[in-house]
Amino acid sequence: MDQVSLDTLNTLDKAGFVAALGDIFEHSPWVAEAAFAARPFASLAALYAAMQDGVRSAGDERQLVLINAHPDLAGKAARAGTLTADSTAEQASIGLDRLPDGEYAKFHRLNDAYKAKFDIPFIVCVRRHSKDSILREFERRLAHDQAGERAAALGEIFRIVALRLDQRVNAPDRLKVHGRLSSHVLDNLAGKPAHGMALELYEVTSSGATGLLARGLTNADGRTDAALIGGRPVPIGTYELRFQVGDYYARAGVAQADPPFLGVVPLRFSVAEPEGHYHVPLLCTPWSYSTYRGS
Amino acid sequence: MDQVSLDTLNTLDKAGFVAALGDIFEHSPWVAEAAFAARPFASLAALYAAMQDGVRSAGDERQLVLINAHPDLAGKAARAGTLTADSTAEQASIGLDRLPDGEYAKFHRLNDAYKAKFDIPFIVCVRRHSKDSILREFERRLAHDQAGERAAALGEIFRIVALRLDQRVNAPDRLKVHGRLSSHVLDNLAGKPAHGMALELYEVTSSGATGLLARGLTNADGRTDAALIGGRPVPIGTYELRFQVGDYYARAGVAQADPPFLGVVPLRFSVAEPEGHYHVPLLCTPWSYSTYRGS
Amino acid sequence: MDQVSLDTLNTLDKAGFVAALGDIFEHSPWVAEAAFAARPFASLAALYAAMQDGVRSAGDERQLVLINAHPDLAGKAARAGTLTADSTAEQASIGLDRLPDGEYAKFHRLNDAYKAKFDIPFIVCVRRHSKDSILREFERRLAHDQAGERAAALGEIFRIVALRLDQRVNAPDRLKVHGRLSSHVLDNLAGKPAHGMALELYEVTSSGATGLLARGLTNADGRTDAALIGGRPVPIGTYELRFQVGDYYARAGVAQADPPFLGVVPLRFSVAEPEGHYHVPLLCTPWSYSTYRGS
Amino acid sequence: MDQVSLDTLNTLDKAGFVAALGDIFEHSPWVAEAAFAARPFASLAALYAAMQDGVRSAGDERQLVLINAHPDLAGKAARAGTLTADSTAEQASIGLDRLPDGEYAKFHRLNDAYKAKFDIPFIVCVRRHSKDSILREFERRLAHDQAGERAAALGEIFRIVALRLDQRVNAPDRLKVHGRLSSHVLDNLAGKPAHGMALELYEVTSSGATGLLARGLTNADGRTDAALIGGRPVPIGTYELRFQVGDYYARAGVAQADPPFLGVVPLRFSVAEPEGHYHVPLLCTPWSYSTYRGS
Repeated sequence: MDQVSLDTLNTLDKAGFVAALGDIFEHSPWVAEAAFAARPFASLAALYAAMQDGVRSAGDERQLVLINAHPDLAGKAARAGTLTADSTAEQASIGLDRLPDGEYAKFHRLNDAYKAKFDIPFIVCVRRHSKDSILREFERRLAHDQAGERAAALGEIFRIVALRLDQRVNAPDRLKVHGRLSSHVLDNLAGKPAHGMALELYEVTSSGATGLLARGLTNADGRTDAALIGGRPVPIGTYELRFQVGDYYARAGVAQADPPFLGVVPLRFSVAEPEGHYHVPLLCTPWSYSTYRGS
Repeated sequence: MDQVSLDTLNTLDKAGFVAALGDIFEHSPWVAEAAFAARPFASLAALYAAMQDGVRSAGDERQLVLINAHPDLAGKAARAGTLTADSTAEQASIGLDRLPDGEYAKFHRLNDAYKAKFDIPFIVCVRRHSKDSILREFERRLAHDQAGERAAALGEIFRIVALRLDQRVNAPDRLKVHGRLSSHVLDNLAGKPAHGMALELYEVTSSGATGLLARGLTNADGRTDAALIGGRPVPIGTYELRFQVGDYYARAGVAQADPPFLGVVPLRFSVAEPEGHYHVPLLCTPWSYSTYRGS
Repeated sequence: MDQVSLDTLNTLDKAGFVAALGDIFEHSPWVAEAAFAARPFASLAALYAAMQDGVRSAGDERQLVLINAHPDLAGKAARAGTLTADSTAEQASIGLDRLPDGEYAKFHRLNDAYKAKFDIPFIVCVRRHSKDSILREFERRLAHDQAGERAAALGEIFRIVALRLDQRVNAPDRLKVHGRLSSHVLDNLAGKPAHGMALELYEVTSSGATGLLARGLTNADGRTDAALIGGRPVPIGTYELRFQVGDYYARAGVAQADPPFLGVVPLRFSVAEPEGHYHVPLLCTPWSYSTYRGS
Repeated sequence: MDQVSLDTLNTLDKAGFVAALGDIFEHSPWVAEAAFAARPFASLAALYAAMQDGVRSAGDERQLVLINAHPDLAGKAARAGTLTADSTAEQASIGLDRLPDGEYAKFHRLNDAYKAKFDIPFIVCVRRHSKDSILREFERRLAHDQAGERAAALGEIFRIVALRLDQRVNAPDRLKVHGRLSSHVLDNLAGKPAHGMALELYEVTSSGATGLLARGLTNADGRTDAALIGGRPVPIGTYELRFQVGDYYARAGVAQADPPFLGVVPLRFSVAEPEGHYHVPLLCTPWSYSTYRGS
């Protein structure tokens, strides 16, 4: 759906406003209707707060209807293609629409267990997760009690909505829904940024398999021109950065052992805060390296 | 074959001496016969030098016979089990006796190319290599000229013999044929050696596959009780050490992110000198780590 | 003297132009006169180049006059206060106007030796140096021959002029005459920037004495709000950064030894390129630290 | 006094035994007399335990006499040279016998304050301390109550005695009274130990003054041949190791800036456990270095 500016939203009548934002909450245009009364909005944050207030003041029963308006994760609807546009894109972002049969069955079982215990669908802000972390989240939340889990479901709905709003509405302020994963390579042999070092970012799953997420080449400042992950939450999960240290020093004409002591240097780390900045630098020589969570 | 002491060798008559060491050079008891004249040997190094002298002074023709007495690498004899005992053990040490068909064919092609060019079998001291490094060695040596390659073949025969002698003969001195791969974990959070951290050593092949070579647990001094590889050459190749840093800090009760920033920390490096000491320490905190070739 | 904009300079008549820039070259308004012909100047760099061209095309004799128009370093004129305004400020910037008698005598001797050999005053761009590096520069240049030293003197004059121009003329572009000395503290115990750590920057002289140059306190990003040295060349010389690591961890409530293993951490390094960026970070825990030339 | 072996002690009669060990406790031969009954001693530790038992079972009054048999720290007796031989050597080890007048007065004041509060002399095991740490210890202990301080005094007497016994008696076991300060330099540019790097160890006092304690040169393994401090307790205090990194790389022919970025690298740290092993390595390149408390 097209972007709309906050200024435009502030001038629309109720019908126009609900046409523009009615689908932000899954199958629940009444939340946009409720928020309309708080017009005009000084900021995107104010609009978001008004929508949250609309839900909070709607009472238990209506909140339950809202929760139940959400589809199963990796459920039949995802496979059948009958989700809302937003849900389709969100579930597809980590492959929940095309799970191998074994994993599909696993999600199915967990969904059933969850519904049996709480009588609501399992809701999670998919864009903040990898498949592995969603499975852990399932287990963690299955241990909740009814009230705790109702609150958790609303919390996740608000996270989903924040991401949708931030994407849909053009405003001077942004909701703090994005994180960043970046790197930086310092060549401690030359005492300056490593220029022209190739690097790759991989996702590491619990099964040990890896999937390539991004490639980069360091510029004169030792950084990649763009963040490796940016403009979105950094999914909770485990990552491996791989740096072509051996090739870099070979091209620089540095004498190395054959094969060089350091060829591909992997840095493995996990992300726990999708809205955080994960800066993972590499300091290296042909015989040593170090890393740390930087800033 | 049983060990024999240098003292005993020094008292044996020629027949006994050749019975004890005649098989050290592949199918070539004449080298032991030639060395016998230099008795008594003050050291294992002196015995080894006498055998090398025997070969060097034997002339081109006899050296060629010695070279041709060696079997093909990963050849039919290895599959058929008709190698000498030493050759059998050596080739088996990196799986040359049980190659998958594709790799067997590759070795076969390289052997043929080598023989077509040099008219001698390709000889390499297998215990100093991984499969990958032997394939690189094949390519490197195919670029030699006839004279260079004759010298290379003798050089490899002397390496094979040094390892066989060092294993067979009990003497106060040792030939410098062994290397060492060790690690050490310093916990920079606590300012002391990391005690009780699990670690694993993997071989990393050019295809990216990995094979577990050793497991260890750090003792109170932050080291494994035994070297990860020791008492033999460290095969030329690429290795990955994997440290259970996240579990270590969890057991120590240190507050960490969920999942912890550092779970399994991999250190990847290559070995170029099989007789060297590769000490690869890990200095770590829950948020940083470094490594270097130590001593 | 007040700043003047490049636009204004481009509209002035010759008299006005020389009035504005005639003193940029020491006692040599003819350089501004010569440059006037190249008006208008598209940039500060173009103005600077025109002035350099004026000197280069003026011939040996006139260049010699220009060179001789410069005062002795730390000479009688400096003590007597009869230098040009610019020279006064420049020499005072490293205390050449108030040397202790012993050092004054040393400069005097070096000036005499230099004049005896080259028959010109020793010229150096003082703002790029510390006292120690000027003394080393004296010795280095005393080894030159006549021609090499004439070129060196002109080179230093151009450096002096570049700094004066960059300060005097307001233009969209800047001459690259400034360097930067900055730091950054990462707390590898907490996995984030160290906030609130006090640090000091000292000059370290060859005699071992130290002088405090700057104090700072790290902000939430682990940096000082302003560069420790910036907006000027970083004088060639040796520096020591001192960080209050022990106090920082004590305030954070981290258990430490008594006294803490790390109290004040000194990082000592030297600057060789006054126009470079010297970023010297500290990565620390209560039991370890590291540094490197960063970017 | 000469060493005596544990075997010899076990064969001596009471008079001989007391003659050999009567002065171990300051002016208190009765402790040796009491310990004599526990003969023979299986180990030095057993002898030490028997002497401690002798004091513990002697009752408050006698313990007070023992405590009062100790001289003032840096008192008149030290200046006048009328201490026991052991006390003389101990106080001299950190210069308490030749304090400048200002410091002498300070010790005098603290001694008086201590005596006024506790009516016993201030006793501390001097060999475990620097002057600074003794002054801090004075302040710390002035805050004790009477009972706590009586126990502290006995504890220090036992430490003094352990050091005297360990030095006097030749036995297969040793009392754990010695610490160790050592270093190790890894050259991360070359990937091996730094051979031939000069280093110095300085004491750093609270006033900022420094005193040279030891010099060393790294051997082929990157270590000094002997510990920088060893065979004694490492005095509580602050130390600075200074490494000639710039000279080392200059001699190795490595291209460096002029002056080199790293010339003298200082590592500053404090010792809190005199019986501990303080291993403080330097990992360096011409542009980076790191250190940590090692093992």
